[in-house]
Amino acid sequence: MTSSTRFEPTLADVEDAARRIAGTAVRTPLLESPVLNARLGGRLLIKAEPMQRTGSFKFRGAYNRISRLDDAQKKRGVVTYSSGNHAQGVAAAAQMLGIPAVILMPADAPAIKVRNTKTYGGEVVHFDRYTENREARGQAICEQRGAVLVPPYEDPYIIAGQGTGGLEIAAQAAEAGATLDAVLAPCGGGGLVAGVATAIRGKLPNVPVYAVEPEKFDDTTRSLKSGKLESNDPAARSICDALLAPTPGDLTFSLNRKLLAGGIAVSDDEAKRAMATAFGDLKLVVEPGGAVALAAVLSGKFPIKGKTVAIVCSGGNVDTEQFIAVLGTV
Amino acid sequence: MTSSTRFEPTLADVEDAARRIAGTAVRTPLLESPVLNARLGGRLLIKAEPMQRTGSFKFRGAYNRISRLDDAQKKRGVVTYSSGNHAQGVAAAAQMLGIPAVILMPADAPAIKVRNTKTYGGEVVHFDRYTENREARGQAICEQRGAVLVPPYEDPYIIAGQGTGGLEIAAQAAEAGATLDAVLAPCGGGGLVAGVATAIRGKLPNVPVYAVEPEKFDDTTRSLKSGKLESNDPAARSICDALLAPTPGDLTFSLNRKLLAGGIAVSDDEAKRAMATAFGDLKLVVEPGGAVALAAVLSGKFPIKGKTVAIVCSGGNVDTEQFIAVLGTV
Repeated sequence: MTSSTRFEPTLADVEDAARRIAGTAVRTPLLESPVLNARLGGRLLIKAEPMQRTGSFKFRGAYNRISRLDDAQKKRGVVTYSSGNHAQGVAAAAQMLGIPAVILMPADAPAIKVRNTKTYGGEVVHFDRYTENREARGQAICEQRGAVLVPPYEDPYIIAGQGTGGLEIAAQAAEAGATLDAVLAPCGGGGLVAGVATAIRGKLPNVPVYAVEPEKFDDTTRSLKSGKLESNDPAARSICDALLAPTPGDLTFSLNRKLLAGGIAVSDDEAKRAMATAFGDLKLVVEPGGAVALAAVLSGKFPIKGKTVAIVCSGGNVDTEQFIAVLGTV
Repeated sequence: MTSSTRFEPTLADVEDAARRIAGTAVRTPLLESPVLNARLGGRLLIKAEPMQRTGSFKFRGAYNRISRLDDAQKKRGVVTYSSGNHAQGVAAAAQMLGIPAVILMPADAPAIKVRNTKTYGGEVVHFDRYTENREARGQAICEQRGAVLVPPYEDPYIIAGQGTGGLEIAAQAAEAGATLDAVLAPCGGGGLVAGVATAIRGKLPNVPVYAVEPEKFDDTTRSLKSGKLESNDPAARSICDALLAPTPGDLTFSLNRKLLAGGIAVSDDEAKRAMATAFGDLKLVVEPGGAVALAAVLSGKFPIKGKTVAIVCSGGNVDTEQFIAVLGTV
């Protein structure tokens, strides 16, 4: 298996991934706050992926992908590029499997993500997020070392792995006696929401799934409307460092256009207020990009009055300084 | 039933409380961090009571107690005194049951606790923590209004309610395939640890349970050693506002001297570092007093190398300003 393996994963692939990561990934809690429910007039279930191994959902896909390499591939190692959460997921999965990992990270990635990636044994190489082509640099290092590229989302095993969180949402909602009306997940390159939608639509065919993006990085939302791949303005900036992919992936968008009910865009201020609410009412630490689905609900852009809705809080790797700044200004 | 009802609760009382609060209290997650486990060389399971209704375990006991009042008592209402978490638990339980509640709170209680108590409909009356007798003031208001006093720990139904968290720890540890070597819980007046110990010793007779206290407020630890009720220096101060009871309760100590294996005291700095670790590695917001059992493990005062240990993080009601200050200085 190489990085050129391409197929559209199905529910069976997500279930296979769930078996593979069982006992290695954390079955994160599906939280519920009576205070938030009362305020919103609905029932909000929060999948707490900050509590996942490496602090975000990314470990799920990385472990599912890397554990399938053959012995020769394992020896030559893996390469990836990532703003930080996929980097940590790949580094941690590679370390557990005894595989060397080179990680291309943007020069402006949060310090906590760089530090943790190194802690997990990853060899970090920096690049400029706005001027360099990370795919090309990653490919060059792969050829040099004979290593396998582990892309952040354009890979069926990565997508299937991220979908295991969706399987857990379906099971945990049932355990909580909840009948879901909708599921919302953050969207950067689209791997998480594609995997979650594969799981949810497979298990609960009548439940719509929505992508939530930062304003100015709403490429998937616009692509879903136009039916073709839309790009973001290269000059755009957002506090949501985990969700800054320039355009949807071919594979993820091919899935998302079939599986998603639509997309929602939230502002940086809405994401910050969601982080503060997660702190105050959920006692959960969420990073900006991890908070956008919560922001869609709290801002009223996705009203849940009288409904039961599950959202993914996808990660919690936020620098102490940034967290303090957000809490201090909201 | 009045506040004079006094008996030593047993496992059956805790199980009865669990049935009573089911569907009203949150079954909080028992968290686990692979990174923390690796660092400690053991398996640490963290009962996340910050995610309980009202942000601490206190709702469990309050609801168990107040829901048992008869109709005449319910009409006249309840009175309590509390540094803040019991206040919120009582106010929220009373509000859900349609009962008026007067809450005596120290003038220096964290603003978040006062604000939330009022949000839950509680009528807040302030007193001076260091110069006034809160029991006497509470009793006076009770007599004035014919209301029932709901004490923070000297009550068998309160203790049994707090013990439901211990029942959940035993069940959730089994679900996680963990065999517990010990359980640690924070201790102020001793109601939480007495209830947890009642549940744990009832379900798992060979598992020792320890109380963790702030230094200078280690009255239970010293009382366990001397065999009689010891008091704290009235001039002592600690950041752990939830754990500043001056002396163990008669009822809680009567239970704790039979049930506990011992006590551990941690410094304010150790509690602060535990809050920072909970933020960075667990993505969990914990207040100072809620972090002392975690601090006992992280500081090495209770080593867990090669062991499986469950701790209670008992609450997360910390002011934003204080949380920022702690993260900024650790």
